[in-house]
Amino acid sequence: MKTIFVQIKCELGEAYKVADELVQDIEQISEVHSTSGQYDLLVKCYLDDDADIGHFVTESIQTLPGIKDTFTLIAFKAFG
Amino acid sequence: MKTIFVQIKCELGEAYKVADELVQDIEQISEVHSTSGQYDLLVKCYLDDDADIGHFVTESIQTLPGIKDTFTLIAFKAFG
Amino acid sequence: MKTIFVQIKCELGEAYKVADELVQDIEQISEVHSTSGQYDLLVKCYLDDDADIGHFVTESIQTLPGIKDTFTLIAFKAFG
Amino acid sequence: MKTIFVQIKCELGEAYKVADELVQDIEQISEVHSTSGQYDLLVKCYLDDDADIGHFVTESIQTLPGIKDTFTLIAFKAFG
Amino acid sequence: MKTIFVQIKCELGEAYKVADELVQDIEQISEVHSTSGQYDLLVKCYLDDDADIGHFVTESIQTLPGIKDTFTLIAFKAFG
Amino acid sequence: MKTIFVQIKCELGEAYKVADELVQDIEQISEVHSTSGQYDLLVKCYLDDDADIGHFVTESIQTLPGIKDTFTLIAFKAFG
Amino acid sequence: MKTIFVQIKCELGEAYKVADELVQDIEQISEVHSTSGQYDLLVKCYLDDDADIGHFVTESIQTLPGIKDTFTLIAFKAFG
Amino acid sequence: MKTIFVQIKCELGEAYKVADELVQDIEQISEVHSTSGQYDLLVKCYLDDDADIGHFVTESIQTLPGIKDTFTLIAFKAFG
Amino acid sequence: MKTIFVQIKCELGEAYKVADELVQDIEQISEVHSTSGQYDLLVKCYLDDDADIGHFVTESIQTLPGIKDTFTLIAFKAFG
Amino acid sequence: MKTIFVQIKCELGEAYKVADELVQDIEQISEVHSTSGQYDLLVKCYLDDDADIGHFVTESIQTLPGIKDTFTLIAFKAFG
Repeated sequence: MKTIFVQIKCELGEAYKVADELVQDIEQISEVHSTSGQYDLLVKCYLDDDADIGHFVTESIQTLPGIKDTFTLIAFKAFG
Repeated sequence: MKTIFVQIKCELGEAYKVADELVQDIEQISEVHSTSGQYDLLVKCYLDDDADIGHFVTESIQTLPGIKDTFTLIAFKAFG
Repeated sequence: MKTIFVQIKCELGEAYKVADELVQDIEQISEVHSTSGQYDLLVKCYLDDDADIGHFVTESIQTLPGIKDTFTLIAFKAFG
Repeated sequence: MKTIFVQIKCELGEAYKVADELVQDIEQISEVHSTSGQYDLLVKCYLDDDADIGHFVTESIQTLPGIKDTFTLIAFKAFG
Repeated sequence: MKTIFVQIKCELGEAYKVADELVQDIEQISEVHSTSGQYDLLVKCYLDDDADIGHFVTESIQTLPGIKDTFTLIAFKAFG
Repeated sequence: MKTIFVQIKCELGEAYKVADELVQDIEQISEVHSTSGQYDLLVKCYLDDDADIGHFVTESIQTLPGIKDTFTLIAFKAFG
Repeated sequence: MKTIFVQIKCELGEAYKVADELVQDIEQISEVHSTSGQYDLLVKCYLDDDADIGHFVTESIQTLPGIKDTFTLIAFKAFG
Repeated sequence: MKTIFVQIKCELGEAYKVADELVQDIEQISEVHSTSGQYDLLVKCYLDDDADIGHFVTESIQTLPGIKDTFTLIAFKAFG
Repeated sequence: MKTIFVQIKCELGEAYKVADELVQDIEQISEVHSTSGQYDLLVKCYLDDDADIGHFVTESIQTLPGIKDTFTLIAFKAFG
Repeated sequence: MKTIFVQIKCELGEAYKVADELVQDIEQISEVHSTSGQYDLLVKCYLDDDADIGHFVTESIQTLPGIKDTFTLIAFKAFG
């Protein structure tokens, strides 16, 4: 499995609806946090080793209504 | 418990040493990931409800050698 | 109680109407200042210890008409 | 009296020492908060109506050791 | 009297019309310059000591057609 | 005569000393204001029609101790 | 032949459709990668020595539907 | 005569049409280059010594269809 | 194999020496281009499927003398 | 021949010395202008069709003392 974090900026007032839908609709998502900072949500996903990260973000996440922008962090290694 | 994420930018070539030290030295840290993007590391911490987040980041994390900058995300709510 | 500061950028010409509505409509708000700088307003709020900051900003503040963007500062500790 | 807010970025690991000194040394300061976001501290000051804000920030605040940058917000009006 | 400078970015092709209107319509304005740089106009205003700067900019300047963004500089002291 | 505005960022704590020196030393300077915003000083200069603006800023202003950065605005036209 | 890299930002959810079209429609393109970072796609093109790079990007790439922004890197030399 | 350079960002796919129109329509323009970087075009203009640069850019250049943003560089001195 | 692109900013005047060393010293590197834009070099690398990208960039690339900053793009999929 | 423009930011107070040296020392340079804006100098160069632009900028320009940063614009086509 590989781990990615997706930071999501939502339309004003939409962040909590988007968070609920992410949790319900997308099985690869393991955690959704609303956060302070430039983005509204931080989402942790586990993808199969042969999954296409770009395809997952473009097709499964960016197509949800209420999302304005996303920035993907690839986790290279988990320490500890 | 409250959850925070700290993004850390390290001196060139120091990110993996810093990650090892974070995991070994600081008990509030539950996950350290090296990541793509502007910062080198994404760190998840659990703090006591009455802990002072700013004090923790300033005194426990920023004082480690090899760290150049930090940005703290407060997690407001975990969904799902 | 926990303290947050919300910086608010308004549509051109709307800042003072927004400020009036914030003061009248939202009981958690203790101070509203119009300010110089990138944002038009600086708002200080006191929330219950178990309140969800993200939910408060998203649902109570960002839904007011005339608001273009918000940036939330969490106060970790008050000195003195 | 006029109200200003000064956002302060400190050297790594110095924010809490700076906060303590601000509170002890400068009588015009009424509140100091450590905060999330780009700056480490948010400071509220009350100055006499005929005080020179630029002089106060330059001479009284910026000269403290451990401060890296400041950004001043002038409060035009307090609502409510 | 207090002095402020307002930098104004106009819609494409509108800067000179906006400048003419500023000069004609708003008595607190003492100078309007078209300038190089990110903004199109630099405007110097003298306000009464008890005037509300934010209210003046929001209600008197930002409501003129053809203005896209403003940034206000408060003059703390005039030297010399 | 042509008019330029020079925005000046100073070393921490040096802005008022720099302002005093600008006023005393450089005859082309007609006004110096300490201001809020990213820069500490806003300076208005009148130069002869055949003066070289870049030479003036580079040789007469940037060489003063305590100056960290400058940004020059050329005034194209004064309205009113 | 000369080599250029074009970084492409697409409308939300459109990056993979755009990538497919780039590969099928434009013969100068030798590689298309979906990538992490600010842009969604990194495209490598070989152009004739006398080809006009600006014309190629403006007319052949920017006219495809689903593209929001492009940034062109000219490769000066290939090492090794 | 005085020299200015205007950097122009065009709507996607429009840069070459804009360049052709600039050359044909505006006599003060001596060179138009399509370029790499944030802007699409770099335009060199010679204006009469008493011409108003801001008026020229606002009225003659910014009014052409297909232009999204402009940034003007004033040439102070030509060396050599 | 997985593909990454590393953008490298070098100390002034060092970019070509760095490029030569990258090609000679690091076997995972398949292409090095000097390019226009914010970074001086664009480097394409093929890593084993189980290689740690962050470790590779931090330990093998960032430790070369003459490098000032790096930004890593992960290639998710190659089209065509 | 191919045309490039190099924007140069100099150490404070050094721009005119750098300009003089560029004109005297580097034969590919046809014009040097001191300019307003973020950079101090705009330099136009004509290079042989088979010249390596990156090598020229890195080795011939960036090695001059007093230069802090450069940004290169490649001219794709000259119109008119």
